[in-house]
Amino acid sequence: MDRDNILLTPGPLTTTLRTKLAMLKDWGSWDTDFNALTAKLRQQLLEVIDGQQDYVVVPLQGSGTFAVEAAIATIVPKKGHLLVLDNGAYCKRMAKLATMMGRQTTVLSHPEDEPISIAAVEQAVIADSSITNIGLIHCETGTGIVNPLAAVSDLCQRLGLGLIVDAMSSFGALPISANDIVFDALISASGKCLEGVPGMGFVFIRKAILDSCEGNSHSLAMDLYDQYIYMERTGQWRFTPPTHVVAALAEAMKQFIEEGGQPARLARYNNNCQVLLDGLATLGFKPFLKPEYISPIIITFLAPQDSHYDFKQFYSLVKAAGFMLYPGKLTAIETFRVGCIGAIGEKEMRQVISAMHFCMQQMNIEIN
Amino acid sequence: MDRDNILLTPGPLTTTLRTKLAMLKDWGSWDTDFNALTAKLRQQLLEVIDGQQDYVVVPLQGSGTFAVEAAIATIVPKKGHLLVLDNGAYCKRMAKLATMMGRQTTVLSHPEDEPISIAAVEQAVIADSSITNIGLIHCETGTGIVNPLAAVSDLCQRLGLGLIVDAMSSFGALPISANDIVFDALISASGKCLEGVPGMGFVFIRKAILDSCEGNSHSLAMDLYDQYIYMERTGQWRFTPPTHVVAALAEAMKQFIEEGGQPARLARYNNNCQVLLDGLATLGFKPFLKPEYISPIIITFLAPQDSHYDFKQFYSLVKAAGFMLYPGKLTAIETFRVGCIGAIGEKEMRQVISAMHFCMQQMNIEIN
Ligand SMILES: Cc1ncc(COP(=O)(O)O)c(C=O)c1O
Ligand SMILES: Cc1ncc(COP(=O)(O)O)c(C=O)c1O
Repeated sequence: MDRDNILLTPGPLTTTLRTKLAMLKDWGSWDTDFNALTAKLRQQLLEVIDGQQDYVVVPLQGSGTFAVEAAIATIVPKKGHLLVLDNGAYCKRMAKLATMMGRQTTVLSHPEDEPISIAAVEQAVIADSSITNIGLIHCETGTGIVNPLAAVSDLCQRLGLGLIVDAMSSFGALPISANDIVFDALISASGKCLEGVPGMGFVFIRKAILDSCEGNSHSLAMDLYDQYIYMERTGQWRFTPPTHVVAALAEAMKQFIEEGGQPARLARYNNNCQVLLDGLATLGFKPFLKPEYISPIIITFLAPQDSHYDFKQFYSLVKAAGFMLYPGKLTAIETFRVGCIGAIGEKEMRQVISAMHFCMQQMNIEIN
Repeated sequence: MDRDNILLTPGPLTTTLRTKLAMLKDWGSWDTDFNALTAKLRQQLLEVIDGQQDYVVVPLQGSGTFAVEAAIATIVPKKGHLLVLDNGAYCKRMAKLATMMGRQTTVLSHPEDEPISIAAVEQAVIADSSITNIGLIHCETGTGIVNPLAAVSDLCQRLGLGLIVDAMSSFGALPISANDIVFDALISASGKCLEGVPGMGFVFIRKAILDSCEGNSHSLAMDLYDQYIYMERTGQWRFTPPTHVVAALAEAMKQFIEEGGQPARLARYNNNCQVLLDGLATLGFKPFLKPEYISPIIITFLAPQDSHYDFKQFYSLVKAAGFMLYPGKLTAIETFRVGCIGAIGEKEMRQVISAMHFCMQQMNIEIN
């Protein structure tokens, strides 16, 4: 069998063998040993955001989108009004799922290459006093742009609005501390910067608003209030948990702590990002975003202006060399993306740069 | 490290090492290799029910309940009326989630130790012409009772009603063939009789009704129509799939086929069931259900009428001996359950009987 390819994608990503080996055991989901695993993991998740005092964390089966939908369903009141701050594909998805479940939803559009403007948000909120909640994507993975979480949080505090943060691809890497900012809910998932395998999400909910969440949800499976109450009472998940995914995340969390937590992870990803940017610059690749907006999570590169370039072919050749790139998510401009996250370091980044160079030569793409 | 305990539970269950080893690889969820894995698995799932001609199958992230909720949301029209045939806990859950999402729902109650009565269903449907759909649990795992799927299907055909079958714990073990019966949707999940790990469900949908499902769902994440259309168009899951769970199910499916498919699996489970019933009879344990209603999936036993018996203690002792039992789910009578499913055979059943005997002696429980 071939060696596994390195994933340069925003999740599922390359995980350590140690994390995967944790899946070689079948846990009884009703058993106290598994309950203890869940309890410890929840405790450790809270510690990542310094949230032990003011927050709870509720895990949920399914992909990240399920957790985003569950957070909106559970937290935005049935008669609430959600303002989604939009500068990319995941923002649009949040607006879509909120609309589908029947919440009044307004989208505040921004260009995809610009972070959310605090002035624009303030204006929109002042213009419509029915707005109750703000939905923000911390790192919009569609482009990799980082949005100003602290400033939006301050604004929400000032204007008395509930803030829901999709921190899917940033949690664990970018700093997020309950000591510095306030939010009502913050969402992430197992297969992102904690470097677990995909299959569950988790939502931090501010204790002060928990009671008001009862009965909001239109969905039994995605009712985070019900999931929380049941878990507190029994120690168990309401419905069958993805036991192997949970065990892998618990093992990944140990390694996260051993590495030095969020600051150490950010330092590694920052280094991955810099090596990648420098290396691809020598091959003539230009990032889509201004340097100051780029996150060390995923980088969008403009496709080469060379008639020999074709993403599918380039992808296949780079894959044959052992690396998986990621397609672009922009409609107007041709781009591709390269992830900096996962159990990879400088070595892998240098390898993929060499591989891309080699593939450009195979395709007769000129270096500009 | 200790050897793993044997799970005598209705999922998560004991899986083969081969199935778990398939999780030691990180797949790119966008990649053609993973798309091929998904496509082959879907094809094989259809073959289990002889459904290639008339059905499609749509996989969904999350636990089984998510797939049940998604099936109801996608198939029952917003103005439809669902009659849930109730003889246990999972029936009640189906009714609850249908009600929460706003579908008109009526529950037809039966005693927990009796299968669904066809006469009662016919009467209820005739009495209320607004009923559009029937919800049936094939094997009600709360007690282990098997309901008359073929007869309910015939009735639905005769009366022009859409049938939604929760076959969570029966699919792969009990015979279900599209050559013999008609249904609009049938639901199961990875971590049941196919002996995969938990983390995804799948729903068979009759092709003839697919088009009518567009726009029914209140939920983006659980919209099976959207999931289906996207998957047909791109070969990909709409949102990040639980890649390791999918890979494990694909490997479990290979072993299912090698074993001889559904008939062979049923034969093994039937044998497990008979060995268990005979062995526990010698220890004085009586099944809750009449013999003819017992399924070879999970068996509910009455708790011993001995003042020394205490489920928690009994559970702990049997666990220390290497086996995990399952608690009862009845409110009125004290019971416990023992699963017959998973990668286990006669040998493991004999072992657990010996272990239970030994634990009874430790607890001074008399054999009646
Ligand atoms: C910011 C953001 N939100 C939501 C999602 C959706 O997560 P999933 O694909 O697991 O449903 C992603 C996935 O990459 C994401 O990056
Ligand atoms: C008949 C039936 N329906 C639904 C479910 C719910 O599945 P899950 O616990 O995976 O959500 C189960 C679980 O055992 C079941 O047996």
